[in-house]
Amino acid sequence: MEDKTQIQEAIKIQGEVVRKLKVEKASKEQIDEEVAKLLELKARLGGDDGKHQFVLKTAKGTRDYSPKQMAIREKVFNIIINCFKRHGAETIDTPVFELKETLTGKYGEDSKLIYDLKDQGGELLSLRYDLTVPFARYLAMHKITNIKRYHIAKVYRRDNPAMTRGRYREFYQCDFDIAGQYDAMIPDAECLKIVHEILSELDLGDFYIKVNDRRILDGMFAVCGVPDDKFRTICSTVDKLDKVPWEDVKKEMVNEKGLSEEAADQIGAYVSMQGGTDLAERLLQDHKLSQSKQACAGLSDIKLLFSYLQLFQVTDKVVFDLSLARGLDYYTGVIYEAVLTQAGVAPVTSEAQNGPMAEESVSVGSVAGGGRYDGLVGMFDPKGRKVPCVGVSIGIERIFSIMEQKAVASAQKVRTTEVQVMVASAQKNLLEERLKLVTELWNAGIKAEVMHKKNPKLLSQLQHCEESGIPLVAILGEQELKDGVVKLRVVATREEVDISRADLIGEIRRRT
Amino acid sequence: MEDKTQIQEAIKIQGEVVRKLKVEKASKEQIDEEVAKLLELKARLGGDDGKHQFVLKTAKGTRDYSPKQMAIREKVFNIIINCFKRHGAETIDTPVFELKETLTGKYGEDSKLIYDLKDQGGELLSLRYDLTVPFARYLAMHKITNIKRYHIAKVYRRDNPAMTRGRYREFYQCDFDIAGQYDAMIPDAECLKIVHEILSELDLGDFYIKVNDRRILDGMFAVCGVPDDKFRTICSTVDKLDKVPWEDVKKEMVNEKGLSEEAADQIGAYVSMQGGTDLAERLLQDHKLSQSKQACAGLSDIKLLFSYLQLFQVTDKVVFDLSLARGLDYYTGVIYEAVLTQAGVAPVTSEAQNGPMAEESVSVGSVAGGGRYDGLVGMFDPKGRKVPCVGVSIGIERIFSIMEQKAVASAQKVRTTEVQVMVASAQKNLLEERLKLVTELWNAGIKAEVMHKKNPKLLSQLQHCEESGIPLVAILGEQELKDGVVKLRVVATREEVDISRADLIGEIRRRT
Repeated sequence: MEDKTQIQEAIKIQGEVVRKLKVEKASKEQIDEEVAKLLELKARLGGDDGKHQFVLKTAKGTRDYSPKQMAIREKVFNIIINCFKRHGAETIDTPVFELKETLTGKYGEDSKLIYDLKDQGGELLSLRYDLTVPFARYLAMHKITNIKRYHIAKVYRRDNPAMTRGRYREFYQCDFDIAGQYDAMIPDAECLKIVHEILSELDLGDFYIKVNDRRILDGMFAVCGVPDDKFRTICSTVDKLDKVPWEDVKKEMVNEKGLSEEAADQIGAYVSMQGGTDLAERLLQDHKLSQSKQACAGLSDIKLLFSYLQLFQVTDKVVFDLSLARGLDYYTGVIYEAVLTQAGVAPVTSEAQNGPMAEESVSVGSVAGGGRYDGLVGMFDPKGRKVPCVGVSIGIERIFSIMEQKAVASAQKVRTTEVQVMVASAQKNLLEERLKLVTELWNAGIKAEVMHKKNPKLLSQLQHCEESGIPLVAILGEQELKDGVVKLRVVATREEVDISRADLIGEIRRRT
Repeated sequence: MEDKTQIQEAIKIQGEVVRKLKVEKASKEQIDEEVAKLLELKARLGGDDGKHQFVLKTAKGTRDYSPKQMAIREKVFNIIINCFKRHGAETIDTPVFELKETLTGKYGEDSKLIYDLKDQGGELLSLRYDLTVPFARYLAMHKITNIKRYHIAKVYRRDNPAMTRGRYREFYQCDFDIAGQYDAMIPDAECLKIVHEILSELDLGDFYIKVNDRRILDGMFAVCGVPDDKFRTICSTVDKLDKVPWEDVKKEMVNEKGLSEEAADQIGAYVSMQGGTDLAERLLQDHKLSQSKQACAGLSDIKLLFSYLQLFQVTDKVVFDLSLARGLDYYTGVIYEAVLTQAGVAPVTSEAQNGPMAEESVSVGSVAGGGRYDGLVGMFDPKGRKVPCVGVSIGIERIFSIMEQKAVASAQKVRTTEVQVMVASAQKNLLEERLKLVTELWNAGIKAEVMHKKNPKLLSQLQHCEESGIPLVAILGEQELKDGVVKLRVVATREEVDISRADLIGEIRRRT
């Protein structure tokens, strides 16, 4: 039993904390967190009075999906899954948690964001941080050397809310990957074709896809005089170029990362370059870059990639961009990122409306990203056997929020059910007849509803149809029963017509 | 850094533990657990040699879903979701974890099976244990007083493997609930109609649905002289009647729970009763039971329920069974459970093949269960406002395993992709032509594949079709290109026919 006065004291102190934060104009998240603690204390106090007061909230950084959000989510998933299936992908599923050590050493500094489970005896477990590491574990464990699979599931990151402007801690990832030893750039090109198809079908406005290659970046760093051990950290700095101007990136390289100004300037010249297969051609002739075998391999592959993209008819949207770096460590070859160009569709400064991107390096409007990671599966194989992989992750949470905004903007009603007809009655004491009729409809596969009241008012039945977007009402009354008909009402036009019972199902099918 | 000799010592000790368990013929699960610990130790030793050895496994009690399992899972979900939608249900989603206190006090003794997250600073969180409590939290939090919703998601239970014969710790629940103040038994009857539709469509063999009412049970306990404070525990004992004979249940009541033999015998007489609306009628006249107001209310509602079930045309499968008790505490009215009668479809003694049931009280062949819980939402509302609810949970994991067994037994190939046509070449150097053609097909919405090799052998392309169940192959060769045709091959019959390029898409659509 807790001491009531102790809790009351704690409430007083916590109240002070909240007031102080408000005076100091602390971040909304910080204040919310302390307010939540205050409410919890108050709830505990309530518990002493016999009825426990719950803090009615979801865990920080998570949310419920309402039926309206689910309807949009389902629509987006259908488009994406259809595309994956059109390309012959299978799907798999893995548990939401993995052995802790499966995730260890895969995410670098971000490992601190992993959710661990409490040690309740038995194995040490962590919630999955992405779908790529579980996929690599899956391949190694089941000794699968080639597969084309998609996986749509939630992942978990204890992200710092102050940094993340509305990122969720629980969010969907939507991954497509091709594992297997294939000829260069063919699977890579298919991944880009898929991004192109999905973004076109989702109709999110204009977009383009940046491509680069980790080997080109590494070669560029080498010829610009970046020490080997600084490749990854300089790469992270380059990755910021889509958010901050070159001058700031250069400052970070020189002042924070200790790079010489000359090396930084050389990198600066390269990372400003954008083009197509012609740029790859030109860089292959570049007297400095061509000294790097790695860079040349990357550049040749970019050329090959573009030749396949031409056949796939997607070069109109693809740009070879030397500033693209991407955050994750495990990429070994081609990398890419799709960006929406229509300003204003996804205001990243607005909190809580934007989901997190599927991967670390999120630029404004970035909605898909991925690349080649040939070493990850080998980290799980006892003999280190490698399985080459290339994949793409669709930034589904951002897409959800864009679609939700579009739905609000269009003022078009989002239907959350697919009900075709409501079985209603105009008079009292017709519950039995309503239940009989709705049974006929259900048994015929018609999506139908009936009010769970004995004597609902006709008006409230019609109102329900208006609200839910149900297009038809089948109205029963004494007269209709006598005549063996049903009055079929079109909700939109209020037009009514008597249909014989025998023709009703056909008529509903015809009209919906 | 770990001391190598220390680990070697630990390995020796752990090796002894494993050997001892094997000698003692301990349970497989116990041995597996200790072997896992041994492997982990060995892996740590390996780590010192420069390459860390992972224990390649999923967490205890969890599993990966292969593409084949996913294909079956998708088929089952489609049938179930279609039924929910036919009845006008919306869907929602909630986070995988909740505030720990949201789950506190909802599951009685089973609370020890809840997975807690590690306290990494911030809120105390637990993985959801079912979908019902999060649903009640959702309703209270968003102040929703009526909704018809389904929710399909995974839940988590640290179940004792020794007790559970193959139950998973991560498994799907598939819930349909109707919340709202409606006229008696109408939503309850719709839940049963839904169970009937789903089990019929899934074609799992014959089944029946037992119904009872908590108020009848409580009234029965009262008139049989069970003390008030023993209602719940005697109810749990009754719940075992579908697994053990009455004699054993009686023994537990008398010897363990301290009930008088006379009271037990009176209960025994009631719980052997099964029937329909006639039994409810008869019990309303029963001189003893009719003394309980509660029992009478329950019996009248059973009669009303049967009258609605008659209109829904499902009484053929529904049995009023006084022995049905169900495990969960929160039921307040009608309860029901669907049971498969075809013996052998789901051997519960076989480990690892059977998933857990959605709810506690699992009888042999039980595949769905639910009931009315009018008090749960009120536990979350600050003012204790109640929202009456009734729902059903489909035992989807058991259904998966039956479907998987049926798939194996039928020897029919389960397709894991929907690819309609493979674009192949008979000669070398036709990669470009293949990519061009597959692009045409994709852009036309045809599900198509192409091998990611420059010069794959025709045989291996055809083999892939056989293995994946792809029905058609579009074969390109020099001659076909010259003639402006494609050779369309039917994989099953090996029949081949030349189709002009212009007609190809139409022809594929016609044939698939």
